Amino acid sequence: MMKPVCLVLGAGAGIGGTVAAKFASEGYHSCLCRRTDQEGLDRLVKKIENDGGSATGFLMNAIEDNVIEDLIESIEADIGPIEVVVYNLGAQTGMKLLHETTYKEFEWGWRIANLGLFRTAKVLCPLMEKRGKGTILVTSATAAMRGNKTQHSHASAMGGRRMLCQSLNAEFASKGIHVAHIVVDGAVDAPDTLGKILGPEKYQALRETKGMEHDGLVLPEKVAETYYHLAQQHRSTWTHQIDLRAFSDLAWWNH
Amino acid sequence: MMKPVCLVLGAGAGIGGTVAAKFASEGYHSCLCRRTDQEGLDRLVKKIENDGGSATGFLMNAIEDNVIEDLIESIEADIGPIEVVVYNLGAQTGMKLLHETTYKEFEWGWRIANLGLFRTAKVLCPLMEKRGKGTILVTSATAAMRGNKTQHSHASAMGGRRMLCQSLNAEFASKGIHVAHIVVDGAVDAPDTLGKILGPEKYQALRETKGMEHDGLVLPEKVAETYYHLAQQHRSTWTHQIDLRAFSDLAWWNH
Amino acid sequence: MMKPVCLVLGAGAGIGGTVAAKFASEGYHSCLCRRTDQEGLDRLVKKIENDGGSATGFLMNAIEDNVIEDLIESIEADIGPIEVVVYNLGAQTGMKLLHETTYKEFEWGWRIANLGLFRTAKVLCPLMEKRGKGTILVTSATAAMRGNKTQHSHASAMGGRRMLCQSLNAEFASKGIHVAHIVVDGAVDAPDTLGKILGPEKYQALRETKGMEHDGLVLPEKVAETYYHLAQQHRSTWTHQIDLRAFSDLAWWNH
Amino acid sequence: MMKPVCLVLGAGAGIGGTVAAKFASEGYHSCLCRRTDQEGLDRLVKKIENDGGSATGFLMNAIEDNVIEDLIESIEADIGPIEVVVYNLGAQTGMKLLHETTYKEFEWGWRIANLGLFRTAKVLCPLMEKRGKGTILVTSATAAMRGNKTQHSHASAMGGRRMLCQSLNAEFASKGIHVAHIVVDGAVDAPDTLGKILGPEKYQALRETKGMEHDGLVLPEKVAETYYHLAQQHRSTWTHQIDLRAFSDLAWWNH
Repeated sequence: MMKPVCLVLGAGAGIGGTVAAKFASEGYHSCLCRRTDQEGLDRLVKKIENDGGSATGFLMNAIEDNVIEDLIESIEADIGPIEVVVYNLGAQTGMKLLHETTYKEFEWGWRIANLGLFRTAKVLCPLMEKRGKGTILVTSATAAMRGNKTQHSHASAMGGRRMLCQSLNAEFASKGIHVAHIVVDGAVDAPDTLGKILGPEKYQALRETKGMEHDGLVLPEKVAETYYHLAQQHRSTWTHQIDLRAFSDLAWWNH
Repeated sequence: MMKPVCLVLGAGAGIGGTVAAKFASEGYHSCLCRRTDQEGLDRLVKKIENDGGSATGFLMNAIEDNVIEDLIESIEADIGPIEVVVYNLGAQTGMKLLHETTYKEFEWGWRIANLGLFRTAKVLCPLMEKRGKGTILVTSATAAMRGNKTQHSHASAMGGRRMLCQSLNAEFASKGIHVAHIVVDGAVDAPDTLGKILGPEKYQALRETKGMEHDGLVLPEKVAETYYHLAQQHRSTWTHQIDLRAFSDLAWWNH
Repeated sequence: MMKPVCLVLGAGAGIGGTVAAKFASEGYHSCLCRRTDQEGLDRLVKKIENDGGSATGFLMNAIEDNVIEDLIESIEADIGPIEVVVYNLGAQTGMKLLHETTYKEFEWGWRIANLGLFRTAKVLCPLMEKRGKGTILVTSATAAMRGNKTQHSHASAMGGRRMLCQSLNAEFASKGIHVAHIVVDGAVDAPDTLGKILGPEKYQALRETKGMEHDGLVLPEKVAETYYHLAQQHRSTWTHQIDLRAFSDLAWWNH
Repeated sequence: MMKPVCLVLGAGAGIGGTVAAKFASEGYHSCLCRRTDQEGLDRLVKKIENDGGSATGFLMNAIEDNVIEDLIESIEADIGPIEVVVYNLGAQTGMKLLHETTYKEFEWGWRIANLGLFRTAKVLCPLMEKRGKGTILVTSATAAMRGNKTQHSHASAMGGRRMLCQSLNAEFASKGIHVAHIVVDGAVDAPDTLGKILGPEKYQALRETKGMEHDGLVLPEKVAETYYHLAQQHRSTWTHQIDLRAFSDLAWWNH
């Protein structure tokens, strides 16, 4: 029997790749897409296969014209109906004051985080609507909830996307499509993002010192549990928004 | 080995009793508390035991002085450490304009929904803090998010409680206590509440007509899945607030 | 001609008394109510009269049974119709952890901040509705928007009151009653509150060092400008919620 | 003496033009910018001048490269320092489901409502920062607060802009720049927008029937009072967000 497909846009070594592995371990065929690092992508796919799951890797630049559209079309044609999309493309580019934020970066942030989800929904929602079901899980961030002085581009892109998620939910929930906006409100223990921002030494130091028993960072494998739970919620009881943070962190409204 | 205890305050035939049964089925000893209907309470306990779980029923009026405090103390002494509390006492008393809302009702709403949680936290948080862990799941409602013209008492009580949950979370999350505020944003398929408000005929009619496949109401057994998931979240990845509604309902911000 | 009445509940030397003076200077008869300090009250009334306005002072404990109700009745009978109420009774009692917060304090906070407004509305809204107009200005605080670890009582009381304001607005706006919830999101330069919390020396030091030109604190006379503006808004263009903070402070969502 | 300049981007016959006239009547030189209708623009400028004020009109397409940047530069060089900007460019294009919303429209909405404000801030904030003062008033809409099923493009653009406003405020308030996000939560009595959407007959019928005394719509001249008040707030007491709606309308959280 054909496996249902879980498409992960933004499948690095953090939340994206880990969620892809979780869904694969539960019987989905995971499609992992990322922009760079063919080797890392292959490693993620191989790992899933070694664990008895099935997956396909795609190296692609989602921001380019038609790339998302063509990808979805070809997966639907060649692999199977996409039941779950994990939209894991963010727009974080570090802490920048207004004068450090270029027009180009501001536009890129919007293209990757906001327009990209709109394009995905334009192609997928009609297909999911026809099938009467589908799940769109959107990884979001603190910046979607409130602006901050070094987040001009990030907050604008993520805040706009939050409203897009509500709009999609308002149109499509009653047609069987579950849109969940997942606010990851804290640093994620991910070598590809936090690790690169901090550098290997600071990153390791943080992992060792933060919180009780070194678990002060948000752990991707634990995040994946909640993503999977959301995708399995019965339609009588859907979550549109949920927040996730480490016990040792303050919520965004407290700092 | 002693089972961990799950204490459910407000264990009727809707969310409360169903969540109690879910936790019992997963290995907790569930303590079910409700104000009236000894027979209904016994039936819930018996059902849990017949399904292989263990449970104790308590008939009590939580609003009275010392009742919550004594209950927690005696469970901790006689049954075991409370790992999870499900605070399921609400303050909904129907749709009432200001002139229909009495001082007495306004105070009752606050006592049951807001002060009651404060009292519970005053007794339990020190115990949970000593043990380095504990979970407080609070059933909330749309009225916690926005007032409405027939909800003067309800919204005031629930909105205050929401801020109390954030305050408890801010003080106790870093000490290992997980507080989750669960916004049930829609009508629950519960004979004890919705059934009584509507009367049996209208209630049955609603169940038959609402949504695709009769599942337009929030189903308690599906709610219980999410409550259980929240209680199992690893502390690196805790949810403070989540909303739940039927796919066929609009979110509170859309109506 | 009879002046319209502006009733200020909580008329100390900070926002309350200053708003009362502003309305008096604009042609209202201001009724100033406070719990203690007859001398301070007399000074505020005298000052208003010296500036050419008219005012009456009331020493009363709003929390006691019937005090608010009797006050409103007697003002309406003896002085004139109340056009504007400034509900300036707050529930701040300093920074307290859960174990430092007593049941008594938690109840007091609710009685003064939340039930008090409900009682005021119960008596005044029918009168205002009959007249087809009226304004209820509610001084609120950061704690109404988010809980915090030393604000268990304060946040619960203020958050509940915020929902009550929305409920009142939902029922009474269309009947000509304007309810405005005013979030004062920062320290107010008020000797009776901040001055007492800090003590005279720290208070003076803060006034001298905070912000450019010593105006980092919220200044009551500037607050009064906005209160007056809100009371004058045409009913085609009413504000339900507004925030106020010093330019040199961060908004609550940024700290 | 040189008048301070108030620059209004989006100066039609509704809020924009009316706010421009208000500021001109209070002593500002108003610069009115709009994309089309030279005649209408001339009429607004002439009206201001006939009332004793001073103004300049600019016909320009803000969305085009360098247009906003060049405009600000030339006003600063030729007319005087811009003290107040009223960013009144919205992204409403009517009610459209997802399949009716094109990529082009989605991008246009973002360019006009979101990127346009970013561009304005990039040029103006450094100038205002140098002068230690400045005001940015942003006309916003319900869609900035919550998505809706026919608002995919509008809500995404406005929601993103709301977060941008918070980010600008977080960076620049302490430098003397006041950013206010003004949520106009209801239909505005504006012939250029509502009038065109409804057509002349329906528009007139609505004006005649809605609310008591025909004032159920938000009236631009009343809106202008609040805009002016915000621009005059002392920096000890700044508002970052305010909502405005007709007394006869429900708030967005109630419908």
